[in-house]
Amino acid sequence: MTTQRVPTATTTWVDGQQADALPLPDRALAYGDGLFETLLLAGQRITLQDYHFARLGEGLRRLGIPDCMTAVREQLAVACKAVTHEHEFSVMRLTVSRGAGPRGYAPPTDAIPRIIITLAPLSANPWVLSSPADLGETAVRWGKQPLLAGIKHLNRLEQVLAAADCARSGHDEVLMLGQCGEPLSVTTGNLFVCLGDKLLTPQLCDAGITGTRRQLIIEQLGAACGLQVSEARLDVAQLLAADELFYCNTVVGLRPVSRFRHRRWLRHPVTSALHGAYVGWLA
Amino acid sequence: MTTQRVPTATTTWVDGQQADALPLPDRALAYGDGLFETLLLAGQRITLQDYHFARLGEGLRRLGIPDCMTAVREQLAVACKAVTHEHEFSVMRLTVSRGAGPRGYAPPTDAIPRIIITLAPLSANPWVLSSPADLGETAVRWGKQPLLAGIKHLNRLEQVLAAADCARSGHDEVLMLGQCGEPLSVTTGNLFVCLGDKLLTPQLCDAGITGTRRQLIIEQLGAACGLQVSEARLDVAQLLAADELFYCNTVVGLRPVSRFRHRRWLRHPVTSALHGAYVGWLA
Repeated sequence: MTTQRVPTATTTWVDGQQADALPLPDRALAYGDGLFETLLLAGQRITLQDYHFARLGEGLRRLGIPDCMTAVREQLAVACKAVTHEHEFSVMRLTVSRGAGPRGYAPPTDAIPRIIITLAPLSANPWVLSSPADLGETAVRWGKQPLLAGIKHLNRLEQVLAAADCARSGHDEVLMLGQCGEPLSVTTGNLFVCLGDKLLTPQLCDAGITGTRRQLIIEQLGAACGLQVSEARLDVAQLLAADELFYCNTVVGLRPVSRFRHRRWLRHPVTSALHGAYVGWLA
Repeated sequence: MTTQRVPTATTTWVDGQQADALPLPDRALAYGDGLFETLLLAGQRITLQDYHFARLGEGLRRLGIPDCMTAVREQLAVACKAVTHEHEFSVMRLTVSRGAGPRGYAPPTDAIPRIIITLAPLSANPWVLSSPADLGETAVRWGKQPLLAGIKHLNRLEQVLAAADCARSGHDEVLMLGQCGEPLSVTTGNLFVCLGDKLLTPQLCDAGITGTRRQLIIEQLGAACGLQVSEARLDVAQLLAADELFYCNTVVGLRPVSRFRHRRWLRHPVTSALHGAYVGWLA
């Protein structure tokens, strides 16, 4: 494990300038009218940048926010240069707001998107497999909303409420179901079920976020580890019958589940293999 | 109609101080983690204040945001004093954010809510019945999410998308359905159907916002006009069969519908009577 220099402060840029405040009015504040990405930096390099940009672009199109990908790339490049140690890991949050606008839900036709970037140190080493998680449950379900499913927009109260529930429960993470009781995700990441040589992950056509790590596993890592990956409608019984469970997100990478209801999992060979492939892919 | 002085600028306060920017980080920006109210001021007086405070209080409880109603009342009182003409109408937006917090969905247990207030002139006179609206339709449906239904939280992308659709269509407003195709509201207000001496309004247990004007009509104005008011699951056929349709919100009050699909409504006696009772109640 590399020795890490841990910067102490978060740095924020608004439209390319270091700042500690957001100009008002702003539609992201008013209505959650915008998108975000949580980025893992290895040194000055954004990992899985193409996957993040693809999802962000899809979000801009779905919300009808003017294409600002060129400005996003330019401003991210400036912010990345603030990382001074090549062996340092950082978490960057990129927020794209539709920007200013008059009162009312209707977006201005001449909106100028606003780009907010924060950079903070990451003390954990994402190349090391996280300790297995004790998975609880929450009564907070994802709402059903196909028009917003998949993209990483700023309307995230469901996960806020579920995460509050998780913190109260003392579990490491909690399973979030959809409106029909189907497992969809945990509060901070996507869920995978290992069953023999099959790898299943919930379909996210009605709710949830299509994570960048989820996409990489579906498109690359599963096959690289000899697994058949598919998106499916799951039920809780399949989770309990799984050989392994894990979840994934940008910050933790892949994290195995050690416990869910009465089930215990002591070994995680498939998750470990996928994690190895993941680190190899990114490093 | 009273002559109105129309102030030109919007004034903004953040935590009681005039400001033009929001300190960062802020969870309302990050996740839409907060609530708002749109208030109609007649002179320095907030109309239907008790209804607004009741809904805001319910929202704080549901989201687990610390009770900040005392600070809200104090800061609103200061902002109201900025209105200098007693015959002036203004629109005030009150936003309560959960405030600052570290990265991640889980809300800090020691959150200090942040209060943002904006005050802007209203050029229309809300005591005069609005011109009847041409009601269109939108493919943007409300998501199903019982945990967030009713309260006026900051996750408002569904209405943003529907309002964008409305603007493109050229209609004055558009009907928003729920996930099962049931009429729930228009983009900016609550819907009412008049049928003989019955007044029906959609149940909002799965989606939508329980408007203050809707509550006043249900609790007071309907009976005052000899109408039986009830919340019900409606279908589009009932709208087409209605004697009258109207919608209501804080800024326009009650607004009759002149047209929906093939139906035209030329007279609006029930809506006019309710509007008269509404103005009498508020003035």
